[in-house]
Amino acid sequence: MASTVFTQMPFQSNSLNKSSNTHFVPSFRLPVSLSFKPRTALPKRFRIRAGLIEPDGGKLVDLHVAEPERELKKREAASLPRVKLTKIDVQWVHVLSEGWASPLTGFMREHEFLQTLHFNSLRLADDSFVNMSVPIVLAIDDYQKAGIGESNSVALVDSDDKLIAILTDIEIYKHPKEERIARTWGTIAPGLPYVEETIPNAGNWLIGGDLKVIEPIKYNDGLDCFRLSPVELRREFEKRNADAVFAFQLRNPVHNGHALLMTDTRRRLLEMGYENPILLLHPLGGYTKVDDVPLDWRMKQHEKVLEDGVLDPETTVVSIFPSPMHYAGPTEVQWHAKARINAGANFYIVGRDPAGMGHPVEKRDLYDADHGKKVLSMAPGLERLNILPFRVAAYDKTQGKMAFFDPSRAQDFLFISGTKMRTLAKNKENPPAGFMCPGGWQVLVEYYDSLTPSDNSRIPEPVPA
Amino acid sequence: MASTVFTQMPFQSNSLNKSSNTHFVPSFRLPVSLSFKPRTALPKRFRIRAGLIEPDGGKLVDLHVAEPERELKKREAASLPRVKLTKIDVQWVHVLSEGWASPLTGFMREHEFLQTLHFNSLRLADDSFVNMSVPIVLAIDDYQKAGIGESNSVALVDSDDKLIAILTDIEIYKHPKEERIARTWGTIAPGLPYVEETIPNAGNWLIGGDLKVIEPIKYNDGLDCFRLSPVELRREFEKRNADAVFAFQLRNPVHNGHALLMTDTRRRLLEMGYENPILLLHPLGGYTKVDDVPLDWRMKQHEKVLEDGVLDPETTVVSIFPSPMHYAGPTEVQWHAKARINAGANFYIVGRDPAGMGHPVEKRDLYDADHGKKVLSMAPGLERLNILPFRVAAYDKTQGKMAFFDPSRAQDFLFISGTKMRTLAKNKENPPAGFMCPGGWQVLVEYYDSLTPSDNSRIPEPVPA
Repeated sequence: MASTVFTQMPFQSNSLNKSSNTHFVPSFRLPVSLSFKPRTALPKRFRIRAGLIEPDGGKLVDLHVAEPERELKKREAASLPRVKLTKIDVQWVHVLSEGWASPLTGFMREHEFLQTLHFNSLRLADDSFVNMSVPIVLAIDDYQKAGIGESNSVALVDSDDKLIAILTDIEIYKHPKEERIARTWGTIAPGLPYVEETIPNAGNWLIGGDLKVIEPIKYNDGLDCFRLSPVELRREFEKRNADAVFAFQLRNPVHNGHALLMTDTRRRLLEMGYENPILLLHPLGGYTKVDDVPLDWRMKQHEKVLEDGVLDPETTVVSIFPSPMHYAGPTEVQWHAKARINAGANFYIVGRDPAGMGHPVEKRDLYDADHGKKVLSMAPGLERLNILPFRVAAYDKTQGKMAFFDPSRAQDFLFISGTKMRTLAKNKENPPAGFMCPGGWQVLVEYYDSLTPSDNSRIPEPVPA
Repeated sequence: MASTVFTQMPFQSNSLNKSSNTHFVPSFRLPVSLSFKPRTALPKRFRIRAGLIEPDGGKLVDLHVAEPERELKKREAASLPRVKLTKIDVQWVHVLSEGWASPLTGFMREHEFLQTLHFNSLRLADDSFVNMSVPIVLAIDDYQKAGIGESNSVALVDSDDKLIAILTDIEIYKHPKEERIARTWGTIAPGLPYVEETIPNAGNWLIGGDLKVIEPIKYNDGLDCFRLSPVELRREFEKRNADAVFAFQLRNPVHNGHALLMTDTRRRLLEMGYENPILLLHPLGGYTKVDDVPLDWRMKQHEKVLEDGVLDPETTVVSIFPSPMHYAGPTEVQWHAKARINAGANFYIVGRDPAGMGHPVEKRDLYDADHGKKVLSMAPGLERLNILPFRVAAYDKTQGKMAFFDPSRAQDFLFISGTKMRTLAKNKENPPAGFMCPGGWQVLVEYYDSLTPSDNSRIPEPVPA
């Protein structure tokens, strides 16, 4: 569901509108896609400035060991207790190492973990807050804990025992699994994908500390060249003379509704007075659930979208965001936004039910589809980021293309859900012309074809919800 | 469990100590009971000042209708749709009306509810935060919602249809029950007392708005005289020339371990240079679970404790805190502390597992016993409050009294749990001399006696955990 369709009205909230009657005025930013104001009337948060937005904490952390010290560190690591990392742990090492979670300097210690669970933010030395909504933690079991003993550091190795990093000044504390799940996901229902994958079978302890990563994480899957670090992205934006960077997080194929939104956002930013807004098209590259389209196929699809001219390569940077996916809705969307501040984005596009999914047990969405953007607009530590809520896009039958929904002629529009899109592709049927560029659609058809080489039977179309 | 025993070491946390090595220095206040420093070396938060601490938002809200307007409001209410309040709803009206939750002006609207769930705090117009960890919400069902229709206000009536208040500028929004429970309690296990009492059978909608309370809430239980409002408490502290107010929240009988802690805190505050620290002994008076000692018996017991000279009436104010009890551990302790800021307290005593209880399903405490005070010390909006973590007190067999635990002679100490205390009182047995003043103990024995008039059989002593 989530970002594949546009089915909500522009951000309009009674509660927020009414807030001016109370003491509480949440830090609520202009719903830009709804009513861009001319530059002279911009609220103070819409400052147009030359440099890129500052990273959280003022400085991007870089947790890599400098080249000249690598050998020394490797020898040091040889004498340390070892902790074996899962694939997802390695993805978090990657995320931390490049400063996406700045100013975090490693896996969370307990005071960071507790602030994340309770406040979705971390207090800095100057009493200001940075956002931090998702626990970035490393679990170990009793046996590993015993093996660590009194050591102040551990070596982190991958499944092949290759040294990945050293964790120093470690702190080991209890892993309150149920509470972690409840406070992060707002439920403890069985069947939450990231939870099932990482928590019940994980150890009863968490180990925090400062990371020293031996060498940059590579996956050797042909896509490493797309994995630009925040530093590299900032360099790219500067090279392109960006005076605004708007980020689009996604974990699904791009269809023309997405594209309309992105191009329209750019048009509006130009109207606001920005001269060179750059789009960061930023597919998530870490762990995703089994029925999401895998990263390599999505990257092929995105490539086609640019080739076919749906998005302008001159003003678009496509890069992979290395984080695993939590599917934690309003909690996770904050992480998605915060990490993009660190990559230099000062505008963040948010849609219906960001990072959401169906409830794993009940027949409903896990999260209220509007909570994500509301929570995002109020979140501590995201004040500097301009939140751009989606406008509703749908397939306009009269124009034969994706267009912003016009409620006065609702009968002209067709809402094509992610599930419907997947079913069509699986059945090698075509969506209505103009829904997605043909090259991109072909990639999807090939992907689903690759899944069922010996079984070409027709998949029944789901009954629309 | 919770506040009846002292079984933890003075606040000492690796994670917090280590924080100076990272970018994150949580707003961590001196563990006063551990190491009071001389006045000259006080950290800047320990300012000694003449006036009382300011309420949250700068001004205590008072949601009562002024006397001259009452009749007008009553007539106005007669034409409004009605919402019937439960007993616990009325307790919240009481809490709100007197400004314990300042600057909240009524039941939460959605933007306040979401900020409470996700951030345990509310952002004010000046971008500062006040703490607000527990949702103060009013649930209505589909039928009531339909009855309200397009009305902008509703009349709130009690179970006897007596008009209690008018809620104006209302906002109705979905009641995400599972998510509310998970994010507030960190679990959705069945058997959470406040949850069972108020949530599953409540309506699927929440209604927020501004409260106009027709007249001050009274319970006519002989205890109303002890229910001082924040304004009245502040007046009392000023009358007594308090230059520090230290609050002690409790929902259990006071034993000599509590008393030792309170008198010792006062001694230390005097050492710090305060000239007249006043203790606010502040039993919770709203909803409590069935096996807690009821308020009227607790008040009798507290009275005896003062009569017997265990606490000094000159420097102690006993008053009732009208809030219902959530048993939500680290989340709720913030509410307990925040409300006391509004009542004028600038020091807050926090013990082991505050607002905690046993896990309703698993054989363990619901919360880590140390999380409460850690979370409290880091909570947004509580920066102005000085947190005083408990020292460990236990029964010292060599002295025949409660004393601070000395680990070098651990064998001399006896830890008497709340469960053990209750079992002794139920069996009309005496605790060791010096555990509780005799008058106070007698009240407890009478209470348990009143529960089982026809059954004097001995209750088996539980096996210590």
